[in-house]
Amino acid sequence: MSKKILAINSGSSSIKFKLYLMPEEKLLISGSAENLGSSTSQLSYKTDKTGETRQLPLKNHSEAIDHIIDILMSSGVVQDKSEIYGVGHRISHGGSYYTHAVAVTPEVEKRIDELKVLSPLHNPNGLAGIKAFEKFLPDAKEVVTFDNSFHHTIPKKAYMYALPYEFYEKYQIRRYGFHAPSHQYVSEKARELFGKEKTRRMITCHLGNGSSISAILDGKSVNSSMGFTPLAGVVMGTRCGDIDPEIIPFLEEKLNIDSHEIRRIMNEDSGLKGLSGISNDEREIESAAKNGNERAQLALDVFVHSIQQYIGAYTTDLDGLDTLVFTAGIGEHAAYIRSQICKNLDYLGVKIDEEKNKNNELSIEAPDSKVKVAVIPTNEEIIIARDVMKVTQQ
Amino acid sequence: MSKKILAINSGSSSIKFKLYLMPEEKLLISGSAENLGSSTSQLSYKTDKTGETRQLPLKNHSEAIDHIIDILMSSGVVQDKSEIYGVGHRISHGGSYYTHAVAVTPEVEKRIDELKVLSPLHNPNGLAGIKAFEKFLPDAKEVVTFDNSFHHTIPKKAYMYALPYEFYEKYQIRRYGFHAPSHQYVSEKARELFGKEKTRRMITCHLGNGSSISAILDGKSVNSSMGFTPLAGVVMGTRCGDIDPEIIPFLEEKLNIDSHEIRRIMNEDSGLKGLSGISNDEREIESAAKNGNERAQLALDVFVHSIQQYIGAYTTDLDGLDTLVFTAGIGEHAAYIRSQICKNLDYLGVKIDEEKNKNNELSIEAPDSKVKVAVIPTNEEIIIARDVMKVTQQ
Ligand SMILES: Nc1ncnc2c1ncn2[C@@H]1O[C@H](COP(=O)(O)OP(=O)(O)O)[C@@H](O)[C@H]1O
Ligand SMILES: Nc1ncnc2c1ncn2[C@@H]1O[C@H](COP(=O)(O)OP(=O)(O)O)[C@@H](O)[C@H]1O
Repeated sequence: MSKKILAINSGSSSIKFKLYLMPEEKLLISGSAENLGSSTSQLSYKTDKTGETRQLPLKNHSEAIDHIIDILMSSGVVQDKSEIYGVGHRISHGGSYYTHAVAVTPEVEKRIDELKVLSPLHNPNGLAGIKAFEKFLPDAKEVVTFDNSFHHTIPKKAYMYALPYEFYEKYQIRRYGFHAPSHQYVSEKARELFGKEKTRRMITCHLGNGSSISAILDGKSVNSSMGFTPLAGVVMGTRCGDIDPEIIPFLEEKLNIDSHEIRRIMNEDSGLKGLSGISNDEREIESAAKNGNERAQLALDVFVHSIQQYIGAYTTDLDGLDTLVFTAGIGEHAAYIRSQICKNLDYLGVKIDEEKNKNNELSIEAPDSKVKVAVIPTNEEIIIARDVMKVTQQ
Repeated sequence: MSKKILAINSGSSSIKFKLYLMPEEKLLISGSAENLGSSTSQLSYKTDKTGETRQLPLKNHSEAIDHIIDILMSSGVVQDKSEIYGVGHRISHGGSYYTHAVAVTPEVEKRIDELKVLSPLHNPNGLAGIKAFEKFLPDAKEVVTFDNSFHHTIPKKAYMYALPYEFYEKYQIRRYGFHAPSHQYVSEKARELFGKEKTRRMITCHLGNGSSISAILDGKSVNSSMGFTPLAGVVMGTRCGDIDPEIIPFLEEKLNIDSHEIRRIMNEDSGLKGLSGISNDEREIESAAKNGNERAQLALDVFVHSIQQYIGAYTTDLDGLDTLVFTAGIGEHAAYIRSQICKNLDYLGVKIDEEKNKNNELSIEAPDSKVKVAVIPTNEEIIIARDVMKVTQQ
């Protein structure tokens, strides 16, 4: 029998939600609560019949969830709370403990709480979401999808840092990789669309406000550019990505700042925003660059270059490349960025059709390209909903 | 007329020297002063007729240079100090100021002194060497070869970090690249040996105690793996290379340590030594791994993987690869490492002949390899001596 499954995707100050009829994967309603805890907090939703955006004071995740449940009822997609069979939560950090989604138990909750050391911003909000649903929907089955578990197949040679080994043993310092539901979704979709043979060696580029690149061999993640935390890897909206580690003590001493402040600078003042001095939004930077702003152009060039470096690096993990996938805000919409990225990949046989690229078509490679180049809209929530089904049907 | 040129290569606790007859490039004497400032300090030299190693208390660089000049005389390669026409010094950091070697002037000395902010260990020792020679050989022409100037052709998109732009303007935080004399020497040698066509797109791997990888396009450096400092890039003997920047504030807080201590850990306790727990010496780790030590094997695997990642990344800077060069202690002698590195590079057409590789031959590629693979012993001192000639003949 079909089941209604709610997928919850909590960020630091937002909650996205989608209610699916499963296993048909029919989307009944989607929406989001944004700017939680600020004066501009709002809630919006959309069904195939109706939709609405409300300015609403929402102090925290728990308050937002209260309102989300109200919406499910008032919009008519759910008559009674008991119809919601399961709720899936995306949790940022599962450490090395979880290779798959799991049912929520007191033990799992304890782990998520402990792992806030590794994800101080996100894990507590995720846990608050779980607790809120326990209260509001006590009968629904709750399942957790970890943002790093798809990457549990990364081999040790790629996940170890060359630091004193005890840091790995004592503090679990290693590469984890994130954006797992997105890399999983687009890589599975690509395998479905283009066949397993043509997607054996695949690189998926999730380019949004946060960005990461993954190397996928025969459907399994074998490397991913975010590291111990989501700060590492390519240049992002406000995050610096990889830098010479020596810069950090240098700046601490030079600016006389502590570990909190340097962390803030690297996470909030850097990336496209820090380089361009304009915005963290690729659209605004692209338009400034077109109007001759040099630092905007520089920001785009550095961003593109950092992505190319990872594509090149990951090609060695795969010993070649069959398919390159772009997804997320920038990956799905920024034709200029995709075109620039592909410019230095001739030697791999990557060749795109600029017309198809401009139209954000599903397949943007030229007929004589050796590598398939795809633009696949991501859908993290369907991975979360599928995980609920998998875990509860076991 | 031929000239005697002395090349001085100062490290943090050592000085290597070579006296050449130029422009013939005939080596008259070579030697080194090591472990300066410690109880095990010693001085050794070799000419084609004689050689010697002496235990000798050497407090500092200046004392060592005093003894080096004595040796030049007592070994008979120089009758009178005035025969030494010029002295070339390798200086670690020239910032963005110097694109080529320069004659020493009070202004250059001032810059080197100022740049100790960027190279606190090496620039002061280099400057001490310059001053010592001004005293001991007041008539010789002094020239400085900077360890980063060969990399001045790296484009801005590759040398900028995605940090707030003012850090670049105010503190000159950018990628510099180091090991310049070595990358320059082996890349010029490769062009000479194999021709410009076959070496258009070249990657040079300097693998020693410190290691770096460079992308060389038509003889010019277009990227290099060390960054703002020599800590960044691939895994090294005791240095960590690239890590998630967030690890640094994390460890500072967790271990309650300051910027000095974290810098020390990343520079001295990490790399092959930190991973293996055995040594920073590749030979010892390789032999432990052969005897079944798992962490030794892991250290080698992580080292090799980090080098492969850079080779892949730099192939995008070059849009392909014609020649791959190995040099320095590990690059010249560790056949196992070279063989492992080349394993995942099939897709680039890299194929080595294991027999030639074992013998450290100059060309180790298989007959059907699309890419030339070379083992070229580095010679930083000849670059320094050539720089003296170039600068003084202008
Ligand atoms: N239509 C579009 N054209 C170009 N860029 C877009 C478009 N839509 C979104 N973006 C870019 O995508 C980025 C945000 O991506 P998104 O995937 O929504 O981020 P998040 O990581 O917050 O989920 C922004 O830099 C934005 O400029
Ligand atoms: N014959 C050899 N076989 C294998 N490795 C060697 C050999 N000689 C030196 N090495 C390795 O080279 C490294 C030192 O390289 P070197 O270029 O001398 O370093 P530095 O950066 O100090 O100049 C050490 O890890 C050492 O194990």
